[in-house]
Parts: sequence; structure tokens; C-alpha cells
Amino acid sequence: MSTSQIQSLAYEVGAPTELPKFPLNQWYVAGFAWELKDKPVGRTLLGKPVVLFRTADGQPAALEDRCCHRALPLSHGTLEEQGVRCGYHGLLFNGAGQCLEVPGQAKVPTKAKVPAYHVRERDQILWIWFGSADHKEPTYEPPTYDIHSSGEYLYEGDVYHYDAPYQLIHDNLLDLSHLGYVHLRTIGGNAGIHMNAQMRVESDDKTVRVIRHMPDSVPPPTYTAAYPFKGNVDRWQEIEFCVTHLRIWTGAVDAGTDSLEDPSRGGFHMRGFHGVTPETENTSHYFWTIATNPKSNHEETKAKVVEQTAMTFEEDKVVIEVQYQNMLEFGPGPMVDIHVDVGANRARKIIEQLRQES
Amino acid sequence: MSTSQIQSLAYEVGAPTELPKFPLNQWYVAGFAWELKDKPVGRTLLGKPVVLFRTADGQPAALEDRCCHRALPLSHGTLEEQGVRCGYHGLLFNGAGQCLEVPGQAKVPTKAKVPAYHVRERDQILWIWFGSADHKEPTYEPPTYDIHSSGEYLYEGDVYHYDAPYQLIHDNLLDLSHLGYVHLRTIGGNAGIHMNAQMRVESDDKTVRVIRHMPDSVPPPTYTAAYPFKGNVDRWQEIEFCVTHLRIWTGAVDAGTDSLEDPSRGGFHMRGFHGVTPETENTSHYFWTIATNPKSNHEETKAKVVEQTAMTFEEDKVVIEVQYQNMLEFGPGPMVDIHVDVGANRARKIIEQLRQES
Amino acid sequence: MSTSQIQSLAYEVGAPTELPKFPLNQWYVAGFAWELKDKPVGRTLLGKPVVLFRTADGQPAALEDRCCHRALPLSHGTLEEQGVRCGYHGLLFNGAGQCLEVPGQAKVPTKAKVPAYHVRERDQILWIWFGSADHKEPTYEPPTYDIHSSGEYLYEGDVYHYDAPYQLIHDNLLDLSHLGYVHLRTIGGNAGIHMNAQMRVESDDKTVRVIRHMPDSVPPPTYTAAYPFKGNVDRWQEIEFCVTHLRIWTGAVDAGTDSLEDPSRGGFHMRGFHGVTPETENTSHYFWTIATNPKSNHEETKAKVVEQTAMTFEEDKVVIEVQYQNMLEFGPGPMVDIHVDVGANRARKIIEQLRQES
Repeated sequence: MSTSQIQSLAYEVGAPTELPKFPLNQWYVAGFAWELKDKPVGRTLLGKPVVLFRTADGQPAALEDRCCHRALPLSHGTLEEQGVRCGYHGLLFNGAGQCLEVPGQAKVPTKAKVPAYHVRERDQILWIWFGSADHKEPTYEPPTYDIHSSGEYLYEGDVYHYDAPYQLIHDNLLDLSHLGYVHLRTIGGNAGIHMNAQMRVESDDKTVRVIRHMPDSVPPPTYTAAYPFKGNVDRWQEIEFCVTHLRIWTGAVDAGTDSLEDPSRGGFHMRGFHGVTPETENTSHYFWTIATNPKSNHEETKAKVVEQTAMTFEEDKVVIEVQYQNMLEFGPGPMVDIHVDVGANRARKIIEQLRQES
Repeated sequence: MSTSQIQSLAYEVGAPTELPKFPLNQWYVAGFAWELKDKPVGRTLLGKPVVLFRTADGQPAALEDRCCHRALPLSHGTLEEQGVRCGYHGLLFNGAGQCLEVPGQAKVPTKAKVPAYHVRERDQILWIWFGSADHKEPTYEPPTYDIHSSGEYLYEGDVYHYDAPYQLIHDNLLDLSHLGYVHLRTIGGNAGIHMNAQMRVESDDKTVRVIRHMPDSVPPPTYTAAYPFKGNVDRWQEIEFCVTHLRIWTGAVDAGTDSLEDPSRGGFHMRGFHGVTPETENTSHYFWTIATNPKSNHEETKAKVVEQTAMTFEEDKVVIEVQYQNMLEFGPGPMVDIHVDVGANRARKIIEQLRQES
Repeated sequence: MSTSQIQSLAYEVGAPTELPKFPLNQWYVAGFAWELKDKPVGRTLLGKPVVLFRTADGQPAALEDRCCHRALPLSHGTLEEQGVRCGYHGLLFNGAGQCLEVPGQAKVPTKAKVPAYHVRERDQILWIWFGSADHKEPTYEPPTYDIHSSGEYLYEGDVYHYDAPYQLIHDNLLDLSHLGYVHLRTIGGNAGIHMNAQMRVESDDKTVRVIRHMPDSVPPPTYTAAYPFKGNVDRWQEIEFCVTHLRIWTGAVDAGTDSLEDPSRGGFHMRGFHGVTPETENTSHYFWTIATNPKSNHEETKAKVVEQTAMTFEEDKVVIEVQYQNMLEFGPGPMVDIHVDVGANRARKIIEQLRQES
């Protein structure tokens, strides 16, 4: 479906002085390509209920999830060759939101249509555009994610729902110092190692990078099981925050071989993609994949990495939801900043700046 | 219990200019006769918690469901010869709401009474009067429903609770075109047949009638199993909306025999009674029975008709509740009318008119 | 932990004219000593989330249940020799709320501390002080409860959560006339006996006592099983309301032996302790123990008494929660007082007076 075909839905703003709740004019993650099968998918994104489906030509489509007749969610309907059919009185809509058929009457009313959103599929990720009134049409292309497409990695992922605002998830992902306390039972291990790793934080007006190096350290069991390390390793953890998503790439090479600063370094990699999309002001969708390059026992190692990653994210979910409940309980109150908050605080400034501008 | 015995409870209205939320001066369905057994029944009707029970003389009674002492619901109490006894401190009330006994003290305070409602039992249906301040006493008698009493029909029914406002149920019942989409798995069958049936809509200031005829059509399996049709049939679907309840009478005769317009036509009948009573502004009670006249396998055919009807109503409930959730999600928004909405729209006008008048 | 060590947290009041919701300058029950084991306990008391734990010296501690870094409840953390460690980023706090360690950085920020509450352990009961701005320091010592410590009684207890305001629990405990209606299946028995017992009510500005005597009556089965009565007994029920807790002491002696008025009377005793602490305006904690002095089958009799008491309290919980839901449903409305309300009404006056003064 080309851009010209669809009736774009700008994110409505209130009075001119009222700011949107989230940065607009961004591509947010709406889902993964493999979610669009034989049924429409309903999902609220940035406070807007959206129905996602794939049209007969294989392209993804995203409509307002409300039949224009009597407001039933279209995600409650069925998919047909030509589009989605409402599950109440059978109105049929194509991927551009145009009503093609009203059962029982010859003429389709001209008003019978539902708003459509710009949606793109790239490297198995579905991106949706939420633009301001000035930018109903996308101003840039959604990002690529070669890790999903290059064939060098085995990966899997999932979609988690959070009863917490999306920025608390950013905070969590931008600070891996919590590994030693939250993830004691999984990937945490020695808290001291994580808290005292060398760390540097870089940022510009749209990204934050937190880089931690642990040279000449003992590789953790998952690493040695997946990769034939000779002894100690040089480890890295690199987190990149890009407003609507983050990349957390970790790994290790044999100590003293490739440079930790070289992007083409070899060794064992675990590459995480994290799409964090507000559902509402208070709830979030968390779209993640984890990719790895085991040298042996490929499927088995991947399965283990995915299982441990899922367990870790479930632990984070518990902590973040409890944290948010407590913030609601106490209301706004002073928070004492510590060393590890630098990256998260910069990300919050970027979000606030983009929100002001949109 | 005669009218003069009970202290009538008018539906309180606020300031003179504030309209009630529902049409008053109507008999609403409060339940079925068979529900009043050895325990009091608590049910909120038009926003008012009511306790229903049968007094020793067999008459139904309806009181405000709140003990005048410490506010426990009387429906949490027990039934005795003389009335209902509160389950906290044992105050005893008769069917007119008068306190007969305060355990532990000789004198019953004169203020010890709870408001009573006018309630009538007719043809197994319990009707309750909600009157305006001007019409605390009923201005007409509740309707009869001979189908339950004539002995010509076998019937059963049930009470469903809806998380949706009552008018969405009216909409659904007044438009059988949804059969082909909502009830695919049960009574729906061919969507085209339902959408394209001959339809006419008649109405006056208190009723709407939607009549659909399907002459010379193939009888559905339920019909042929219940009745010895010779071949094709002339089918009818007649819906009558009467503000607080609807009658949906469907059936068929052998093609070309009795006139579809003749009320005394023979053949196979399925006669549905539908009491739709607001619980609150946002929730509803749905009291239904289905009656039929099988020529053979009487109990078996009735059981099958009841089972299929129940399944159908459960499918409607899912759709209507999802529809209402989506209406809440999106807030008020434009709705495009189509051909099949005529009956439902007239019913909405009647309700609004009666609400304005009450 | 001495008073001087801790940073006391006064109950914040709003504008000078705004009254606190509960009487302040009181010791409320926060829990039982046996609840403080190897994990911190989180509990909201008078609207304030509190974390309770025991420090290495065995003393109880109570802190605001919110890490000063990113607001995670400290009750979600772990206990160590020196105090409680937050389960997110590992900040460590002692029993006075002082932060002792911020993992990953050398210096602990001076602002890194959380407010502490005065808490005392006496006779297995944990008491917490909620003082007004004028009385941050306790103005009296928490009460003793010798029944738990004397060795004369076997006892057990539990903590129940109520979806109802605390004063509805007072009402219930101060009026044992409901035994015949609420507790039909357990300790109730003959309603008439309970309603018509001799009753007297005494009160001063901080206590209410309701005393009921049933001289020369047949002992109930639990009594005869526990104690070798010779025949009829003189029974008593004594309820003492002390603002934040009640004592309900019941028992019997052989008829005509010890005086019912003599505090040192012998016979069989069931001594109940009832700490009733608001969780919020609408919910409550109910801390209870029941102590008894069987002459034989000690453990078996105690177990039976505890089991029946627990069943009774669960019945009360159902009634009180239903009552409160109905009060919310109907909103404020007139309540007709009866004979048995005298004690409860006096307790309400005391609470209101103390609330006005605090």
C-alpha cells in the first residue's frame, strides 16, 4: 500500500499549548512481522487502538480499531482476500480503511471509512508512524535491523505487556547495574563486578550510548557453553537508546585479541533489540528479540539464551511494575540520583525535548 | 400484598431540570417467578439495589436492599414466615417493608422500615414499577405473556448479566442482520439470506415492529428436526420492541399454505421473550425465555432449541460487551448508519421521548 | 534502636484546618513479633506504606517503604546484617533509615536516607507510633498484654485484611448481639440468649467497656470439652475498647462459685486481643489472637478454639465487607439505632474527639 493510497491519521493534539504525552514524528514498534497471520491483531499504541493485519499482497496495514458503523473493534472481525470484515454486521474494509461492502445494501455510504496509519515492515519489525498535525506523512524511513536479516544470527523474541509507563523501562535498560540485584537467580552473578565495570556514556540529541567494558574477566557459563573461549575474555556491554527502541549488544572475545572498540570484533555475541512503545500513559508494550552466534550446539544454545533472556525480562517486569505501583502510592517525591543514572537521565532529557518539539 | 399496604418508592429525581437516566412510569422485568425460592434475591435495577422475595401468602415482594439499622443488604439475610430477617442483627421486615421485630428490645422504633416497590407476577414474569414523583402508583397493569401460560409451548429461560448499557442490547435484538456474522457457528448460516430478506419496519409512540419474511426457502436443520415440513417453507421473523421488553417470534409453515400475515398461522414456532432492564447506566440484566411447539421428540427438541438459543445469546453478549468497551475507549464519535439500523434507531427515539416525559 | 537514633516521621497534616483522617498520637498495632523473620514485611498503615524488619540486634525497625533512589518498595529487597538492601540497585539502609552503601560509588550522598517510624515490640505485639507534628516523639509507652507472656495461656493469632473501614470492625466487636445471626454455624447458637443477656456499658474519654453476664446458664460445648464444669455456669463477656485495639474476654465459672465481678475469678477463659489498624480510609488490618486455659487436652482444645475463632472472624469479615459495599452503593443515609448500638456509638464519639484533637 503506497503512501498516497492511505488516509493518514495525525496524532490529534488539544489546544495549541497542550503538549502531546509522547514524542511524535517517530516510528514506533507496532509488532513483529510473524504476528500477522490469519487473524487481525488489535493493539493500543500511544493511546490509540489500532488493528494490524496483512493484505492480500502481503503488505502490513494499520487502521483505527473501530468500525465506523457501530464501533465494534475491527480486530474482533475476520480477514478476507480484500481486507478485514467487521464481526458484527459484516462491513468490509481494505488496508487503506475504505469500506468496500455493506451487506444488505447496494450502495456504500461515502462516509463509510476508517482512518489508516502509516505502517512499514523492515527486518521482521513492524513500524508505525505517529505524526503531529504538521507531519502526517513520515519525515524519515524507519530504521533497519540487519541482525534479523543477515543470516549470521539465530534469534527469537516476544511481546510483553507492562503495567508501567514506558520510560521506567528505558531507565531499566539503560542501567545494567541492576543485574546484580534483580537478576540474582539468572544472569546476575557477582554484583560487585557489574557495579564496578568501566563505564562511559555518550549522547547526542537523539541517542544515548552506555558502554561498559570488563577486560580480562572470567567468561560466564552461558558464554563458555556457546563458544570455544581459550581462557579469560574481554567482555563488552553496549547499550544504544534511540527514542523508540534500544539495542543492547553484549559479548566477548578471547582476552587480548580483537579490540573492544572495533565494531567488527569477532567472538561471541548476544544482540538484543528492545522496542518500547507506550500503550497508554501508564502502560507499555515491550517488543524484544535476542540474537546470538553460537559456534556449536546452535539450536540448543540459542534456546538456552532465549530462555534465560525471557526469565531476566520477567524479573525486570516484576520490579518495574512494583516500582510504578509504589510511585503511584507515594505520589511525586524527591529521588536521590546515583552514579548509574547518567544514561537514563540523558534519555529522559531527549524524550522531553522531542515531546516539546512535537 | 395490595397496593394500599405498601409504601411506594418513587424514583428520586434531582433538580427539576435533571432528567432521569431511564424512562420511568414503566413496568420493568425484575426476574422470573421461579427465581423466588427459599432465599431472598438481591438485584440492582435502574440503579436501585432491590431485594426480591415471596411472602408466606405466595405474593412477590420487593424492598430497598438495605437494612434501615446498619445498611446490610437484606438479600444477605434469611426468609421466614413473616418476611425477611437481616443477617447481621436480626431485624425482621415484612413484604411492605415494615419492621416487625428488633431482637433484644421490646419496642420496634417507628422509623424502622425500608421502602417497598410495587411488584407483580404475571405469566411467570416478575414486573417492577419505577415511577416518577408524579406516578408513584402504577398507571397501568403489567403486560401478560400468554406463551408462558397457554400450555401450547414448551419453554425455558435464563438471566444474563451484561457489562454494557441496555440500549446496545435493544440495537442487537432489533437487527437480526447480524446473525450471519456474529452467529456463524450457531444459527447464522448463510449471511446473504439474512441480509437480503424482505424487511418492513412499523412503529408508533411506544412500539417498534420489524418484520422479515423469507418465502419459499429451505428450512434450517432445527426446524426440520422439530416439525414434519414437506419441503420448502415460508419463514418469518417478527420483532416487537415494547420499551422494557421485546418479543421475537420466528417460525415457518409449509410454503404456500397459511398466510405469513395471519397471526393464527400454524406451523413451527420459536417465540422469544426478552426483558432488558438497566442495572446501572453501564450494565444490564437480560431476562430471556424461548418457547417452541415441536410436533415430536418434544423434550429433546426443546432442549436443543434452548441450548442453541443460549449459545447465540452468549455470542451476542461477547460482541456487545466488546463493542461497549471500544465505545468507552474511543469516546463519542460519529457512527455511519446503514439500512438495518432503522428499527433500532426508532426504538432509541421512543426511549429518549419517554425519558424526556418522565 | 533508641528514640534518639531515629529520624521520626510525623504524620503530615495538610492545611491547619484540615483534620487527620484517623486519631494521631496513638500506638497502633503494626504486626506480631513472629512475622519478622528473614524477609522484610511491607504493610500500609494509616495510609503510609511501611517496611518492617528486625535489625541484627533483634530490635524491630520500621521505615518508609520507598527507596530514596528510584522509589522501589524496600519490602521488595533483602535483609542483611546491617539492615535492608533495595532489590533494584542495591542501596543498603539501617534501621534508622540511613543509607550505608550505594553500590558502584565510593561516597553515599548525604540526602540518601528514608524516614523511620517509632516502633516497639511488647508481649509479641509490634506497636507503631503515628504522631502529629506536635508529637513526633511518643507521649506514652505502648500497652502491655500480659496474656501473651504470663505462661498461663495457650494462644495463636493471625492477620486479616478487610475491604472495609476500621470503625465498622469496632462496631462489630463492640456488639456481640450479632452472634446469633452472623455466627449461626459456629459459636452463635440460640439468638435469644445473646440478645437478651444482661448488659451494661461503661466508658471514659479513651475506653468503652461492654459487660454482659449470663448467670446460671448451660455451658456451650467448647466450654465443657475444655474444662471440668460440674453443671450450670456463670458466664461473662467483657469487651474493652481502647481506641487502637480491643480486648474481648469471655469465660465461665461453676454457677454460684466465684463472683462474676472479681477480676481474679477462676474457671475457663477465652481471651481475645484485637488490633484494628486502618490501612487506608476504606481498608483495614485486623490483628487478632485468642488465648485459652484448658484444663486437659491442652493443644487439642486450643487448636479447636483457634479454629472456631478463625471461622467466626471470617464470617464477620464477609458481613462487614458486604455492609460496606452496600453503604458505598447507597451513599450516606439515615440509620435507625437500636439497643445494642450503645457501646459502638460511644466508641465512635471517642474516635471523633481524638481525631479533632490530633
